[in-house]
Amino acid sequence: MAESSPTRASVRDVAARTGLSIATVSRVMNGSEGVRLHTRELVLDVLEELGSAAPVARGHDRPTGGPVFVRCPYVLTDYFGLIVSAIAEELAARGRAMLLDAGESSQLRHPLGQLPIRAQAAGAILILPPEDASELGALRRHGFPFVIVDPRTASPTGSVVVSAAHHQGARSLTAHLTALGHRRIAVLAGPDDWLVSRERVSGHAAALAAVGLLPDAALQRSIGATTEEGHRAALELLTVSERPTAVVCFNDKVAVGTLRASRELGLGVPGDVSIVGFDDSDVSRASTPELTTVWQPLAEMGRLAVAQLTRLIERAPIDSLHAELATRLVVRGSSGPVRAD
Amino acid sequence: MAESSPTRASVRDVAARTGLSIATVSRVMNGSEGVRLHTRELVLDVLEELGSAAPVARGHDRPTGGPVFVRCPYVLTDYFGLIVSAIAEELAARGRAMLLDAGESSQLRHPLGQLPIRAQAAGAILILPPEDASELGALRRHGFPFVIVDPRTASPTGSVVVSAAHHQGARSLTAHLTALGHRRIAVLAGPDDWLVSRERVSGHAAALAAVGLLPDAALQRSIGATTEEGHRAALELLTVSERPTAVVCFNDKVAVGTLRASRELGLGVPGDVSIVGFDDSDVSRASTPELTTVWQPLAEMGRLAVAQLTRLIERAPIDSLHAELATRLVVRGSSGPVRAD
Repeated sequence: MAESSPTRASVRDVAARTGLSIATVSRVMNGSEGVRLHTRELVLDVLEELGSAAPVARGHDRPTGGPVFVRCPYVLTDYFGLIVSAIAEELAARGRAMLLDAGESSQLRHPLGQLPIRAQAAGAILILPPEDASELGALRRHGFPFVIVDPRTASPTGSVVVSAAHHQGARSLTAHLTALGHRRIAVLAGPDDWLVSRERVSGHAAALAAVGLLPDAALQRSIGATTEEGHRAALELLTVSERPTAVVCFNDKVAVGTLRASRELGLGVPGDVSIVGFDDSDVSRASTPELTTVWQPLAEMGRLAVAQLTRLIERAPIDSLHAELATRLVVRGSSGPVRAD
Repeated sequence: MAESSPTRASVRDVAARTGLSIATVSRVMNGSEGVRLHTRELVLDVLEELGSAAPVARGHDRPTGGPVFVRCPYVLTDYFGLIVSAIAEELAARGRAMLLDAGESSQLRHPLGQLPIRAQAAGAILILPPEDASELGALRRHGFPFVIVDPRTASPTGSVVVSAAHHQGARSLTAHLTALGHRRIAVLAGPDDWLVSRERVSGHAAALAAVGLLPDAALQRSIGATTEEGHRAALELLTVSERPTAVVCFNDKVAVGTLRASRELGLGVPGDVSIVGFDDSDVSRASTPELTTVWQPLAEMGRLAVAQLTRLIERAPIDSLHAELATRLVVRGSSGPVRAD
């Protein structure tokens, strides 16, 4: 638990600022039930203003058997929904309740600052958190136990992280394409500032290097993660003078958009161009042809996150701060040998 | 709140059965934090054994600002994940925490019996609950506020229910097909004991009746909700001597399986057979051709469930016990005019 810093405000200071009694402030900080919503928000507002100078709920009041706060600030579709489902099942199996904060509006709410001052939650699992390392670092300094699943950016030193082996998955995908004879391989990558996208681009480069090639910047775009963005970028990429013979897409949705663009341009898949995705989601099996892609251990990631967090909460030793779970190449009809001409 | 029944056990009885003190039993029942996990489970086990004879947590101890228990005993993919995301966002907007129980293992855990005896949750939202009306009725008799989203079977009298207008959606889908000249229309329905499937089959029959036809039992199958089940059933349906000219599928996944079967049989879609889905999920836009389907107001259902539950918790009047939200026909490439021959 964090030690009291000399500049830290006291519960008395918070009481004075809010006009509430010390007893009421303590009840909010210790997560007692039966406090009026507005009273609680008043206290939390002041604590948030104080930031790292806020008093910390007494550590021994944080029940180690309390619920786990899970934050997934995205819509729970095929990808995130599978991680959250596995977390829910694993927490239930361990007799723990789960407090879920989900949906894109969560990115506007900034709930992390309130976590250390809410004694209810025993710990937290943060899925692809949009916060930067300094904000996550503040959580660590408060001594609040948390695990990051799929970090978006570099995580603060000493954080416990669970992710898929994106680099390995992307490398196996591009190696599959080079084995089929492809050399002009385009990449529709995710946003530049996403660690997961950078990892995948790096895995792609590693597989190219293995056949003596460097990535061609002219064949690479950083886009988003939707079918529409894939469609738009592919229409552009597939009409350059020296057309790529294969396109590596950030995920299956982007690949579906690329398939659509190929159809519109009259290109056969995989005859004229091979298209590969990532995630092995439902859409990868709904398209024609079905997509070559990379399966990610989403459920296993969720379960491991719970196991790691439980160790943190119980102060048991953690074997590996950063666990990377293996992915698996899934070859289907959308990739084939490069045309000999 | 439920009145104390003459046969109800007392907290003292529970203490005697568990060997714990009355104070400890009370703390578990009132949801106090800091009770050991095993102690809590011991008490909950005995309370569950007692069933409706279990003592009830004092009503005035149930904080109306407490978290809402949300149960979705399915994997949170495209369909359920969208409902749960909307519930999460709406609860957060109202300053309420969400306790989530999700994943298929939840069906084995039977958490509903514990809800009324746990004072922490202010109320519950139950998504497609597998429990029958008598089990849900017990929850009502305990006076515990809850809302059912998409009931699987008939709900107990007086329950508050939110669902999509399945009947209307299915009717508009079949009406679209009859307007294209289709008369031999097959149906791959969901399980017989699902209310939602029965509602859709009935909507289909209503649209047929409008053109003077009765459904043909030989062209109807009750299957599950997966691509594999759709594929298997369609291979059978599309090889009968007098082939249907259109197939109405329980959902988009079943429709994708039917598309695959048509391809394998060398049938053009929609030239030889029209195929329509339900849900307007991602897969409906990933297939070739894209699927004609019915959009469901999933996010709106989630938000309305929160609004209704809030009214129940605050004992505000409920305008409509059963709110049915309108669906919308989405016409895409998988349906076309019946071939003139």
